[in-house]
Amino acid sequence: MGENITRKIIGAHRLSGEMTPGSEIGLRIDQTLTQDATGTMACLQFEAVGLDRVQTELSVSYVDHNTLQMGFRNPDDHRYLRTMAARYGIVFSPPGTGICHQLHLENFARPGKTLIGSDSHTPTAGGVGSLAMGAGGLSVALAMAGEPYTISMPKVVRVQLTGRLSGWAAGKDVILELLRRLTVKGGVGKVFEFAGPGVASLTVPERATITNMGAELGATTSIFPSDERTREFFRIMGREDEWTELVADADAEYDETIEINLSDLEPLVAQPHMPDRVVPVRELAGLPVSQVAIGSCTNSSYADLKTTVQVLQGRRLPPETDLLVSPGSKQVLKMLAAEGLVEPLLDAGARLLECSCGPCIGMGGSPVSQGVSVRTFNRNFEGRSGTKDAQVYLASPQTAVNLALAGKFTDPAEWGAAPERVELPQTAPSIRHLFIFPPENGSDVEILRGPNIVPLEKFDALPEVIEAGVKLKVGDDITTDHILPAGAQITALRSNIPAISQYIFSRVDEQFVPRILEAGGGIILGGENYGQGSSREHAALGPRHLGVRAVIVKSLARIHRANLVNFGILPLLLVRPEDYDRLEQDSELRIRTAAIAPGATFEIEVSGAESVDVTNDLTEKELNIIKAGGLLNFVREASRA
Amino acid sequence: MGENITRKIIGAHRLSGEMTPGSEIGLRIDQTLTQDATGTMACLQFEAVGLDRVQTELSVSYVDHNTLQMGFRNPDDHRYLRTMAARYGIVFSPPGTGICHQLHLENFARPGKTLIGSDSHTPTAGGVGSLAMGAGGLSVALAMAGEPYTISMPKVVRVQLTGRLSGWAAGKDVILELLRRLTVKGGVGKVFEFAGPGVASLTVPERATITNMGAELGATTSIFPSDERTREFFRIMGREDEWTELVADADAEYDETIEINLSDLEPLVAQPHMPDRVVPVRELAGLPVSQVAIGSCTNSSYADLKTTVQVLQGRRLPPETDLLVSPGSKQVLKMLAAEGLVEPLLDAGARLLECSCGPCIGMGGSPVSQGVSVRTFNRNFEGRSGTKDAQVYLASPQTAVNLALAGKFTDPAEWGAAPERVELPQTAPSIRHLFIFPPENGSDVEILRGPNIVPLEKFDALPEVIEAGVKLKVGDDITTDHILPAGAQITALRSNIPAISQYIFSRVDEQFVPRILEAGGGIILGGENYGQGSSREHAALGPRHLGVRAVIVKSLARIHRANLVNFGILPLLLVRPEDYDRLEQDSELRIRTAAIAPGATFEIEVSGAESVDVTNDLTEKELNIIKAGGLLNFVREASRA
Repeated sequence: MGENITRKIIGAHRLSGEMTPGSEIGLRIDQTLTQDATGTMACLQFEAVGLDRVQTELSVSYVDHNTLQMGFRNPDDHRYLRTMAARYGIVFSPPGTGICHQLHLENFARPGKTLIGSDSHTPTAGGVGSLAMGAGGLSVALAMAGEPYTISMPKVVRVQLTGRLSGWAAGKDVILELLRRLTVKGGVGKVFEFAGPGVASLTVPERATITNMGAELGATTSIFPSDERTREFFRIMGREDEWTELVADADAEYDETIEINLSDLEPLVAQPHMPDRVVPVRELAGLPVSQVAIGSCTNSSYADLKTTVQVLQGRRLPPETDLLVSPGSKQVLKMLAAEGLVEPLLDAGARLLECSCGPCIGMGGSPVSQGVSVRTFNRNFEGRSGTKDAQVYLASPQTAVNLALAGKFTDPAEWGAAPERVELPQTAPSIRHLFIFPPENGSDVEILRGPNIVPLEKFDALPEVIEAGVKLKVGDDITTDHILPAGAQITALRSNIPAISQYIFSRVDEQFVPRILEAGGGIILGGENYGQGSSREHAALGPRHLGVRAVIVKSLARIHRANLVNFGILPLLLVRPEDYDRLEQDSELRIRTAAIAPGATFEIEVSGAESVDVTNDLTEKELNIIKAGGLLNFVREASRA
Repeated sequence: MGENITRKIIGAHRLSGEMTPGSEIGLRIDQTLTQDATGTMACLQFEAVGLDRVQTELSVSYVDHNTLQMGFRNPDDHRYLRTMAARYGIVFSPPGTGICHQLHLENFARPGKTLIGSDSHTPTAGGVGSLAMGAGGLSVALAMAGEPYTISMPKVVRVQLTGRLSGWAAGKDVILELLRRLTVKGGVGKVFEFAGPGVASLTVPERATITNMGAELGATTSIFPSDERTREFFRIMGREDEWTELVADADAEYDETIEINLSDLEPLVAQPHMPDRVVPVRELAGLPVSQVAIGSCTNSSYADLKTTVQVLQGRRLPPETDLLVSPGSKQVLKMLAAEGLVEPLLDAGARLLECSCGPCIGMGGSPVSQGVSVRTFNRNFEGRSGTKDAQVYLASPQTAVNLALAGKFTDPAEWGAAPERVELPQTAPSIRHLFIFPPENGSDVEILRGPNIVPLEKFDALPEVIEAGVKLKVGDDITTDHILPAGAQITALRSNIPAISQYIFSRVDEQFVPRILEAGGGIILGGENYGQGSSREHAALGPRHLGVRAVIVKSLARIHRANLVNFGILPLLLVRPEDYDRLEQDSELRIRTAAIAPGATFEIEVSGAESVDVTNDLTEKELNIIKAGGLLNFVREASRA
């Protein structure tokens, strides 16, 4: 039986476990990446392990999230990351160099390699055949320390592509179509592997857009073959020697198959406030648009921005509509400048922002009150833009720029002929000299810390009995942005858990923090798909600091579930969804943790009411991690044993 | 007797008063400018006047301070400013177009015209012979309404320039030399008018750098002749028809004369935390530099940035030193792009920020803790950078870029040969189409307001007796940054006085606001040069909202004094400076306001101690404004009478 790409890579990196879907497997990790928002904590955790140098083939520390540097905390974090990288053998990418995923794709990603990153959009590197997964910062820290990365063996879904994109349809529309069909929960426990005759027609940046936003399906990751197109991409990036072919065997088997005919796709858009609320752009014709933002790790490539400028050239944006453009990397910006594309961008009235994540993570560029913002980004969760009542839509650069010029949603039939699809030029300028490569031996490097960089506290073990109240009851699809909002002010506290914890659930219920502090701890009750969105482990660390020892939900998002385990919070699943309605904020619960066995159902006592049944999908090891009080405790105890 | 330029312009615009130094004169104002941080309030005040259209020849509303748009308040303000501009006949400059003073110089400033702006660096336009003054937002609002602008007739200081700049000396070093000699108080009540054979050797952008930073002398303004150089600048800017010659008569008289031999100047730097702590750069050789920032209304011209790139070309910044570059306008950035200068800037490792004030007002770009930051800006007040313990130095772009490459202060003798001084090319691309010009009749335009835009409260008249405690005692040289810090979070509240008032003196004494609120009002005790720095009237409006009815100081900065009057706060001067030491925080005072006459001394009773004598330099009219509770009350009462 032939193998698909996913299983080939997993097979070559498997250190433990069986390759049957759902089994826990341990993987050797070749590469890691971190970004500044999650990276300071991951680096503090790596330091806690006590090694002299990272054990991976390559680890890169990018600064792209909070590049604004408002106040000392943020530049202090960047300085810490720079010196820590030099000390421990990590490549450092300074603020303003670009967005981690775009930079990693251009400079470091390799076919057949395993990559984990402390950012949920790490699957971008799947565009060149890397098995690239988002993970909590602690998992990345441990991977840097040479520990295996543990996942549930995923099902592999063959996404059979036929036809070719035409007109204004773009790579973005492929993933929006998948989200429309499968929803934000449709990818849990799965890898989406792209195959079929349509693959060859897609450029590497288009493929990377698709694998990037596969994160919104809740997928483990997404991956494309490494083919001649990939080889050409590597040649243009000046690293053809790092290319290898990686394709599925002709008779490869898959757990499921989905088919998409690229020729059928038209411009699509995800409506507020979820990436799967996808409809054709034409259906919204007439809706005024106050802001358009082009950029983010999803759509900030040379081709994305050149297409944008081609449409803008010689035209002027309406005064009512702001257009913000954030190039994905200095390479992209240099290529635009070299081709004389910066001037027409400015002449159209667009705003050129720094090469960084920028507005995608609410780092500036908030829409006006109740404003309609069309963004080429990957998430449109409520409030993520920084404006709570803004209406954010997700679309391709092709769609976004046309709507910007019209100042409203229009039917793509009115956009005229689409420009030819942009391919990379024969050569691209290298920006490799902008990375700071570590010395061979970094033991002399002094690590510089600022006063806001607070070492991780030592958490206690799980008590035998948890007696606590439900301190917050939330609905379905709670995102990590709900749990811990982004934005400059809060993100600046990422290396200071006591300080950042004051913002936990602050946009959902301002009284949550005082309430749980007064109670000395508590339990969160949630609905379906709890914790979807980014990989930020602060969404588990913060609650843990506040005394949350268990969440009880209908279902959980993958990365957040892992973060809960890593920081010693019990993720419990309601056996009967209707019990959700019986539990209320301030219900007093009693959980006998000794009674918990992997996969087993047990009762939780409810004060003055009938008990409820919960279960769990924890492995023996995960349960032991939680009982130890979290993964760092567990690893420390294991090394002492 | 021949006339100097200053008196020619004042004479042609004088509506009342005598042209003897110190006399109050009323001036007709031709042009106004506002920026977003002070402009929303100025616009709310203009609206309160009730006119249908601005009465000036030209009013421009720039958005350049808080362009980050963190959260809804900021973009809502920008939308308000845009729609308000269209409604009332004001030109609007959207965020990202550039810095107000750079844009005004390139596009709108005219020789011989009067200009007031709600920004203390409005004198930049003096570089082309405009009589350009910083003013409080309320004064600008009233000028837009056609009211005269009242100033004390200044002394005119002839700054006789001989020789020419050589080596690495720059326009910036001329104004640093003046600051070294005269200090930040040396210009109070004066206009600095540049003359002599050295003038012709200075380009218009160099002249604008000098007049811009004349604000740091405390001067009323600074001005250069409009000569053939100026004509050439206007021709390149595509508006030669707006140029007129304006030079002093050959036998013009001046109140004072200072001489500067340009040939004697060497690279200078202002040390923390005051722009007049000037020493030669060479004296600091060896001091490590962690950050360099090039930009701001002082030094963000085409020549400034081209010089920067010429020095950077082919070189790489050290990893330890960040270099941030903010072009002054899209015209500047377009010119750099057209000449292929963006790529070498990026290749050196510099960060290209949006065309805006940026780090100069603490809007991002904060240094690391205790970091040494060398900036081409105009102010280095403690904490203004956003990092309280940062050490900020002010220098020319030539100096800044050399220090950035070295990663430390070095002797200019080691910098090699200076590149040829950059002149503007024969033609420059216009960005006139990026401004939003108002319709002929704006009465149909709907003004869009956000929930954070709070109408100005109506203040009450001055009571006959003020009985209140000293609620804060501060030292000399208190700046408006001390009174009201800048930065994105606080600046976002500029159109919401109750909210922003919570930050008054917050970086000086966190207990000040609760203390004065508990007392229901109070008095501020200050030293010399109280209120120096920016024109932000919120530094008077905020205290007024908190119940401050009087400040008692040794001496006052000009613009802040005007703002105190405008918002009905008594500015009282200690007759005996040693009384400052006798008064303490919580001293209880009794001020009989009926006893106050213009220029007269009177007693303030001190509970349980000897009384102190204070005086004032108020005119009859200013005293009446304060008694009415502020200028808006006064104008309303006058129109009813």
